[in-house]
Amino acid sequence: MAKFEPPLPNPALFTNEQHEIFMGESPELDPKPNECIVHVRCNGICGSDVHFWHTGRIGSLEIQAQHCLGHEGAGEVVWTGSDVAHLKPGDRVSIEPGVPCGHCFECTSGHYNLCLDVKFSGVPPHTGSMRRYHVHHADYLHKMPDQLTYADGALLEPLSVSLRGFERGPLKLGEAGVVFGAGPIGLISLAIAKAAGACPLIITDLDRGRLDFAEKFVPGAVGLQVDLSRSPQEMAVVVREAVAEKGGDVPRLVYECTGIQSSVITASYVPRPAGEVIVIGVGKSIMNELPFMHLSMAEVDLKFINRYHHSWPTAMRLLAHGVLDLKQLITHRYPLEKADEALKASADRSSGSIKIHIEDGDAQQVGGGVVLNRAYL
Amino acid sequence: MAKFEPPLPNPALFTNEQHEIFMGESPELDPKPNECIVHVRCNGICGSDVHFWHTGRIGSLEIQAQHCLGHEGAGEVVWTGSDVAHLKPGDRVSIEPGVPCGHCFECTSGHYNLCLDVKFSGVPPHTGSMRRYHVHHADYLHKMPDQLTYADGALLEPLSVSLRGFERGPLKLGEAGVVFGAGPIGLISLAIAKAAGACPLIITDLDRGRLDFAEKFVPGAVGLQVDLSRSPQEMAVVVREAVAEKGGDVPRLVYECTGIQSSVITASYVPRPAGEVIVIGVGKSIMNELPFMHLSMAEVDLKFINRYHHSWPTAMRLLAHGVLDLKQLITHRYPLEKADEALKASADRSSGSIKIHIEDGDAQQVGGGVVLNRAYL
Amino acid sequence: MAKFEPPLPNPALFTNEQHEIFMGESPELDPKPNECIVHVRCNGICGSDVHFWHTGRIGSLEIQAQHCLGHEGAGEVVWTGSDVAHLKPGDRVSIEPGVPCGHCFECTSGHYNLCLDVKFSGVPPHTGSMRRYHVHHADYLHKMPDQLTYADGALLEPLSVSLRGFERGPLKLGEAGVVFGAGPIGLISLAIAKAAGACPLIITDLDRGRLDFAEKFVPGAVGLQVDLSRSPQEMAVVVREAVAEKGGDVPRLVYECTGIQSSVITASYVPRPAGEVIVIGVGKSIMNELPFMHLSMAEVDLKFINRYHHSWPTAMRLLAHGVLDLKQLITHRYPLEKADEALKASADRSSGSIKIHIEDGDAQQVGGGVVLNRAYL
Amino acid sequence: MAKFEPPLPNPALFTNEQHEIFMGESPELDPKPNECIVHVRCNGICGSDVHFWHTGRIGSLEIQAQHCLGHEGAGEVVWTGSDVAHLKPGDRVSIEPGVPCGHCFECTSGHYNLCLDVKFSGVPPHTGSMRRYHVHHADYLHKMPDQLTYADGALLEPLSVSLRGFERGPLKLGEAGVVFGAGPIGLISLAIAKAAGACPLIITDLDRGRLDFAEKFVPGAVGLQVDLSRSPQEMAVVVREAVAEKGGDVPRLVYECTGIQSSVITASYVPRPAGEVIVIGVGKSIMNELPFMHLSMAEVDLKFINRYHHSWPTAMRLLAHGVLDLKQLITHRYPLEKADEALKASADRSSGSIKIHIEDGDAQQVGGGVVLNRAYL
Repeated sequence: MAKFEPPLPNPALFTNEQHEIFMGESPELDPKPNECIVHVRCNGICGSDVHFWHTGRIGSLEIQAQHCLGHEGAGEVVWTGSDVAHLKPGDRVSIEPGVPCGHCFECTSGHYNLCLDVKFSGVPPHTGSMRRYHVHHADYLHKMPDQLTYADGALLEPLSVSLRGFERGPLKLGEAGVVFGAGPIGLISLAIAKAAGACPLIITDLDRGRLDFAEKFVPGAVGLQVDLSRSPQEMAVVVREAVAEKGGDVPRLVYECTGIQSSVITASYVPRPAGEVIVIGVGKSIMNELPFMHLSMAEVDLKFINRYHHSWPTAMRLLAHGVLDLKQLITHRYPLEKADEALKASADRSSGSIKIHIEDGDAQQVGGGVVLNRAYL
Repeated sequence: MAKFEPPLPNPALFTNEQHEIFMGESPELDPKPNECIVHVRCNGICGSDVHFWHTGRIGSLEIQAQHCLGHEGAGEVVWTGSDVAHLKPGDRVSIEPGVPCGHCFECTSGHYNLCLDVKFSGVPPHTGSMRRYHVHHADYLHKMPDQLTYADGALLEPLSVSLRGFERGPLKLGEAGVVFGAGPIGLISLAIAKAAGACPLIITDLDRGRLDFAEKFVPGAVGLQVDLSRSPQEMAVVVREAVAEKGGDVPRLVYECTGIQSSVITASYVPRPAGEVIVIGVGKSIMNELPFMHLSMAEVDLKFINRYHHSWPTAMRLLAHGVLDLKQLITHRYPLEKADEALKASADRSSGSIKIHIEDGDAQQVGGGVVLNRAYL
Repeated sequence: MAKFEPPLPNPALFTNEQHEIFMGESPELDPKPNECIVHVRCNGICGSDVHFWHTGRIGSLEIQAQHCLGHEGAGEVVWTGSDVAHLKPGDRVSIEPGVPCGHCFECTSGHYNLCLDVKFSGVPPHTGSMRRYHVHHADYLHKMPDQLTYADGALLEPLSVSLRGFERGPLKLGEAGVVFGAGPIGLISLAIAKAAGACPLIITDLDRGRLDFAEKFVPGAVGLQVDLSRSPQEMAVVVREAVAEKGGDVPRLVYECTGIQSSVITASYVPRPAGEVIVIGVGKSIMNELPFMHLSMAEVDLKFINRYHHSWPTAMRLLAHGVLDLKQLITHRYPLEKADEALKASADRSSGSIKIHIEDGDAQQVGGGVVLNRAYL
Repeated sequence: MAKFEPPLPNPALFTNEQHEIFMGESPELDPKPNECIVHVRCNGICGSDVHFWHTGRIGSLEIQAQHCLGHEGAGEVVWTGSDVAHLKPGDRVSIEPGVPCGHCFECTSGHYNLCLDVKFSGVPPHTGSMRRYHVHHADYLHKMPDQLTYADGALLEPLSVSLRGFERGPLKLGEAGVVFGAGPIGLISLAIAKAAGACPLIITDLDRGRLDFAEKFVPGAVGLQVDLSRSPQEMAVVVREAVAEKGGDVPRLVYECTGIQSSVITASYVPRPAGEVIVIGVGKSIMNELPFMHLSMAEVDLKFINRYHHSWPTAMRLLAHGVLDLKQLITHRYPLEKADEALKASADRSSGSIKIHIEDGDAQQVGGGVVLNRAYL
């Protein structure tokens, strides 16, 4: 196929070592034969984008010079490399941002999410998708069912994170669904818990507004405000009591979606003996005050997750069939040209935002084909 | 507590070695200190009841003299033994029919359903619950939430069977839910699959009427009529294609709820490599024509279930929270005095029945306390 | 059966709130019908015995007045309660110290070790087995095969602890066996790793003498001395390199048998992605400096154990068949009358002791029946 | 690298549609850049080789024209393709015969053994390794530790089969190791069971001679001769009694290594409730007389295996460390020029052979480097 000549400019959102956030022109596109160019129609903003901007790093991954962010994207294929067989220009795709090596033990043994040589869009030094035209490995572009909008497509990445949590710690039907943290990942986890048949449903957060949002987003769920004047043990009792009041047994699992130390500690006290804390949230490198002897006496395990594998087909199906509907999470939308403002809004707690989307054109557009009734289930 | 003086006669449904089915007076009640007497308000009829009546046996369990059937019961406690602390007269309970020994390896290692010394109501020589007053071990009487009717309570036993199937072979959210057989267990399994977030949903049966029922009972499910002129391999392709047409991957699991040889064989060809057939249905002692090399090449396992353990609290919660609503399954209701007619109707395929209930008084009655809104979820 | 008239005095080892350790007369024996009296012929000393003596407590369990220690015992049945059918005077038994309630969810779901109502010998307020005559529930007295000595019988408790670790995190044949800590539990874990076909075998400790012991106890194992001047990450690299040098892959599992914070942290850095740290050691209530983000990025789980369940039959078989031979662990032996000196030696690091046994009569005696050749395997 | 000019002729063993077995000249070598040419120094004969010869097919895989057999080979690299980085001429390698596609769901989700596009040496239409020079994908050539001989290298394939059986159904230390069938796979499985700490060890076969071999090969194991005049249920009781006599509990697992219907049926009756039959043996396409209701009542699962994945590094380590020593299995050795005679001997039951090796040069040769003492464990 011929070289891609972009019909429009390629604006991109950058941060740099000086912790600035600004629009600029994307690095030139240099796709390989197994890659495609995607006109990105929608990008979600993740807390890690703000973190890179504010601190210049996450763990050992460091912003150098200027760096284009973005790893929650969906769009339209506009060019395909010569080795690409399963996609063609015009296809509507969601971008799975991490491209693993495909050859190491992790890649061949069922957890390519743990590949040490992964190339992850938006994580330095890999250019992210917060630009108009983005280059990506074709195998990690997932053709979307017609029912899904580009906005849906940009939600598949955070949905995948939560699904990985439930893969590592699956709920049984009728067990209590307990989620710590009512940010996007916590809210999606709560929705998953309900979709998986959990009952009752409990979610905690410091912010009563977010809990109110959660109770509307997932009817039947109970939002419990964290009271920092209580000890983790006391707060854990509050959680257990809330579950009991709704007819649940002592929970077996807690999905910890904050990564905040006090929340992880509280979560450790919640599960029944032989239970598990599924640590989905990411936080500080080092954690203190872990209730080691309690975990030991109760055989409560700490299980961790890092990203996801093989999740896109499932995630797309869950939205297409209406098992999950995450649209309400998108509280704010900005055009691509104002992506810098979007990021600033995302960092501003007073904005009341849950998930902010950056759009280029109509991100609510579905496929041109026959659109199945999403509400069939 | 004083000896129980039954205020009413105690009619019971019997079968005998001559394959008769008839009403008679219950054997005298002789409760032990750890037992209760329950005024049974509702009984469900199971296929095995008909089987005992028609053939006089199931496996090594043989009807001798005359035998009172019934193992799907719920009712009101009317007398408690002196060692019973957690129940009192007036309590509304569902009867878990199997009372295991409590001491063997199976009982202490988490699968009391496999206790070889279990005493199971309605299985010879243990008197069943198809009578007005029934004696049962208090630990296996489960106090129902107020939202549940006695009819709900009588559905907890078949619900427990299906739940055990999903416990042995849990579906992941967004995987295809494939159920073979649209009898009560298959229908409940289908409802569970939906409640667990499976999609798409496929159910097979020989009877188009049952499939129509299934599609109404679980909206979105696709009923596939089994065509006996096709080979199992061909029929398996039809199932796989139906899943694919609704956007599903090749199924990982099949829930086989018929116990019929041709259905088990077909089920064996459906799963993807590394899949599983969860054999819930019971059938003939011996099965022929198993596609051994296919199972071997594809590493498709056959997993079996026998009854259930620890399921009542979960099953009650699922109904109380509205995660499942099984009421539609009850297609016919008979008063206790006509229990023999109920059994005959159950054996008569032309009745179009799914689940027939035998009632003594108002089986649709809920608890006297505050009734939570079942539809909160 | 008649009341038991002890033919000999019943000396016992006590500690008290004043942190004294002394011999005294046992509390009077008051067995129930389901209990036996055992003439304890051998007791092992555990680190927790020393801990109770020195600090007066473990977690919420507190020494009040004076308390008889001991939970690693074996002996001869000298009296059986009227409900005891499977034992008779003269039977040689090993004492499983924890007697769970038998009725709770933990007890019936396969992990009676987590029963909250367990009565555990030697843990306040339950009288321990460091006395001549000890009362114990008959179901938790295990008749030993003739090949086992009383000394063997007293090793079954620590063996059970290590077996539980391998039950929670089973090694596959040919995987590296990495054990942190060369105390009794670490050494037994190392022997188990070898018996389970692990290779290569690595054990760490601060004390070179213990590592030399380990290398003799488990030929082929490599003892790595912990260098506290190195960071946990550096020490973890040393462990990984030692494994690699012996031809092993990056370890999937680490068995942490110290409970010391720096060791747990180091262990966290050792496993490959998707690995596990099996925390067998017990330590301080609170642990700091956990490398949270590392665990998260690598999906390395922390799994905990508390005691054991159903382990005695297996543990006895492993010794009887010679799969394991733990006798070398017993480095010092004291008569019951000098149990206080035994405890003091156990607390004295300069003694070079691994496991100290307290004997009453010949603890090396095997059964009177036909003694199978232990070396048959 | 230059084209490979074979310094010697390339004789190969063929079978054809006429069920002949004969020596001929290998097809020409046409290696790709990611392949190597191996001078095969040792080949093992598998029952499936004889089966292809005698019947012309296995399942849907059919011999057409003439076909070179062989999938248990080891040898010396003599040429490497231009893309091969990890091997060089002179390297001693064992050949993993199956080369999966590397891209499908099976390949990326941890079971590449189930790849539907696998290219398997010696299975039509893929040329096998029973020739002097063999072409193979470099990623599936495993460099052997110096301690391993070429004969060891040729044993890694059947060892991998047995290891897969234990991966699907892992034994816990101290559980009974019950193996059905004393052919090469059964014998290796027995050795694995012992190496994994199983006790007691029981093996069954029709042939007393093979059982005697087994008892010598794995000291301590008990060989039970199958008595075809007994029913499977009766034979299963004999197995359970043999286990009990050696101090074992009712077995949880049976490793079925014959694939013969009566043996699979007998195996189904052996396990305790909640047990498993691990079906390693391959047999007829269709199996009859499966005790369906027994499996159902006891929740005994049938689990199947097909080949292996990721097993070579582990298998090599087990031999290098002396955890397993399989040399005794090689009862007969033939030079490559007489490979046809070797195959005839393998098909002749009166030969008393277990494993026959075809050698080209000294197959007992170890590596030129420092040879570690194999007996270190």
